Parts: sequence; C-alpha cells; structure tokens
Amino acid sequence: MNTTYQHIKVIGFDADDTLWVNETYFRDAEEEFAELLSQFETKNKIDQELFKKEIENLPTYGYGVKGFTLSMVEMALELSNFSISNKTIAHILNIGKRMLNQEVELLPDVENTLKKLSNKFKLIVITKGDLLDQERKLEKSNLLEYFHHIEVVSDKKEENYKKVLNHLEIHPSEFLMIGNSLKSDVLPLIHINANAIHIPFHTTWQHEEAQVNTEMSKKYLTLKSINELLELLD
Amino acid sequence: MNTTYQHIKVIGFDADDTLWVNETYFRDAEEEFAELLSQFETKNKIDQELFKKEIENLPTYGYGVKGFTLSMVEMALELSNFSISNKTIAHILNIGKRMLNQEVELLPDVENTLKKLSNKFKLIVITKGDLLDQERKLEKSNLLEYFHHIEVVSDKKEENYKKVLNHLEIHPSEFLMIGNSLKSDVLPLIHINANAIHIPFHTTWQHEEAQVNTEMSKKYLTLKSINELLELLD
Repeated sequence: MNTTYQHIKVIGFDADDTLWVNETYFRDAEEEFAELLSQFETKNKIDQELFKKEIENLPTYGYGVKGFTLSMVEMALELSNFSISNKTIAHILNIGKRMLNQEVELLPDVENTLKKLSNKFKLIVITKGDLLDQERKLEKSNLLEYFHHIEVVSDKKEENYKKVLNHLEIHPSEFLMIGNSLKSDVLPLIHINANAIHIPFHTTWQHEEAQVNTEMSKKYLTLKSINELLELLD
Repeated sequence: MNTTYQHIKVIGFDADDTLWVNETYFRDAEEEFAELLSQFETKNKIDQELFKKEIENLPTYGYGVKGFTLSMVEMALELSNFSISNKTIAHILNIGKRMLNQEVELLPDVENTLKKLSNKFKLIVITKGDLLDQERKLEKSNLLEYFHHIEVVSDKKEENYKKVLNHLEIHPSEFLMIGNSLKSDVLPLIHINANAIHIPFHTTWQHEEAQVNTEMSKKYLTLKSINELLELLD
C-alpha cells in the first residue's frame, strides 16, 4: 500500500457523480428548460439566469432536485415576464419528477471496487441533497450492502465533516474521502487534517468548481477511475 | 419515578408540533391556497384535492415544505384547468419560501423541560421532513445544546426507528419517544418494544391520524403538556 494511506481505516464516498451518474441529468434538464423558454431568451442567458436563481435560493431550498424544480418554475415566470403557459409549468414540474424517478446508472467499476475495499476497510457514504432522493438512489443502486453507514448532510463544509467523523468516532487521520468535487469532497477534508482523493467526473456543476493552488494540490491525489483505488490501497 | 419508565436512558423527541409550532403554518398555507383558487372551487373541495395530491406525490417528494409547495403548484394548474395566472403561481412559490423562513415558535415549557431532563437522560431528536429545513429550525430554536444527537429521517416507520436505535446502540427497552403523532411517534415504537408517550397538538395533519384499539391504547400514556414529563420521570 502507498504509505500515505497506511493509517486509513474508514473510506467515505461521495455518491452523485462518484458512484453513479447525476450531473448529466441536471445538464439534460437545463437543456430542456432552455428549449421550453427559447422564445424569450438565448440558451446562454437562460443557463446563466437559472444558475443565479439556484444560488439565490440555495440558503432557502438547499441542494437537490426539489429546490432545483422550484427554481426552474420561478425562473420561467420571470424570464417570460409572467407570460409562460400553464402547460410549460406543468412540463417543468414533470422534469423534476422524472429526475426523482430516474434509474440509477452506476459509474464503471464501482461495484467491484467497493466489494473489494469493503473487505479491508469500513466504507461509508457522505452525500448531500434531498434526504429521500439520496436514500432512494442508494436503495436502487444495490450498493447498500457494502456500506457500514450512510450520512446525508445538508452541506459539505468542514463543520459537516467534523460532525460526522465525531459522531462515528473516526479520527481524521484514519479517514479517506473519495469524490468528484474538489470543493465539497476534497478541500474541506484537507483542512481538517483528514485525507481525500479526487476522481473528477466529466461534468461539474459551476457551483462545485474550485481553484486550487500548487501547495494545496500536493495534498491530495487525483485518479482517473475508481478502480485505481484498489492498487493504491492494496 | 413511575416504575414503567425506570429503565429509560434515552428520550427521543419529535420536533414539529412537539417542540415547536408547525402544523398551524401548513393550515394557514392551505387557507391562503384555497383563497387564491376560490374562483375555481369551494374551499372544501380545494382542501381535499390538495391533500390527495400531496399523498399522491409523497413517494416522489417525501415530507416537507418543498414537496408541499410543488404539490400546490401542480394542484393550482389542475384545479384551474390550466388557466391559473403566473402571478398566482409566483404567490404560491412565496408561500413556500415564507414557510421555510418562518421563525420558530417553541411550545410552552419546552425549554425548561428539556433543560431539566437533559441532566438525567440522553436526549435526541428524531424528526422527518426536509433535511436543511429541520436543521435550520433546530438552529433557530436554540435547543441544540440539550440534544446529544439529531436524526432527520425520511419516514417514521418501525424500520427507521430500528435503524436509528441500532446505529446509536440504544436498546428499545431503554428508549422513550415523545411526540404528537400517534402514527409516527407512538405506534411504531410500541411495535418494536420501545416506549412512547403521546402529547397531542391541537391540530393534526389528516395523514398522521390513526385509529387505536383499546388494547393498544393501554401501552402508552397521553399527556396534556410536555412539562408533565418532569413529574413522571422524576
């Protein structure tokens, strides 16, 4: 095993875009939304305004599909200057429902990697978003048997991680977090002296993007695929 | 102490309508919603249809204000036969936001009772609803210091309680749950051989109502106010 990781006892996994496809469905929804409003604005402008609205509503709604849907409805009213049709609003509500009922598509090698890692480490999931939605996706994923614990958090800041580790009695030095978001899955862990590995997904939500300086970038590894964990932690 | 409770080590509290006012705000929102749609249907019919829509959407949205707001929007489209104005939809979105930003109004004697009980018992909160919303209300309540653990669950069935007790390593016989809903806070606990006390709130959501037979009704106490716990558990 890579000596950096010899103290690791517990591995935490992000879920969306780390274990399964997620951001792709949001991109698809945004495309569809822009199409529905194409008579009022350009796609670029609609994308920008929807993003601004989501960020504006984040303190009230938090992360997840329900808040995203409410923001789409609100944005449709505003972008159309309160002239959007009832049918279009119904269409937007259905985009949200479709996302919530979406099948779970695991990323390559996820199950095999978790299966092997679960023999040597305690695995947990730390994910943010709508509670019911995340639980449902875990259920559908058929991955529950590999996890010792599931924690759905309202945000992924240092404080949230500290609370989870504290509650589960895990020392930061023994904890390794794996995820696709530098901002949510990597940097907060480095700041609390835990460990993190970044596995980027091909699409990242603007809100999850982060700038990292050279010094910080030395403190975590970046892998191309989850199965590279097996060699690294062997 | 009442001998029934001599083994109790941990007390779980429901939050909405047990620690603070909640259902009242839903009733107010329903009133306002019916008013907005009064040109299309009677108040009674609107109430009934909204309730049906909420229950229909429950498996998709789960509990909480965001799902309630989405159901109100959907119902407004349908009840108006897709002729509701954009301004009314905006008004409905604002009802939801107002509910999410509502101040927390503690029920009488809550703080004093928790303060005293926390000297002798480990207190936890088990509540369902939107994760962020429940965390925010706990924060606003200034009651966090009395609780050892907060668990927001997507539902309050036997399985959910079993998981929480298991995870926190609490034996059912040592656990007492306190709440206003027979269906969510009392009956599931009796079924898993834990203990429960019912403290009704003056308003109960139709979905939380439960029929209880005489035999079952002997298995839990009903109190009028939370401060009666002090004498009972002294």
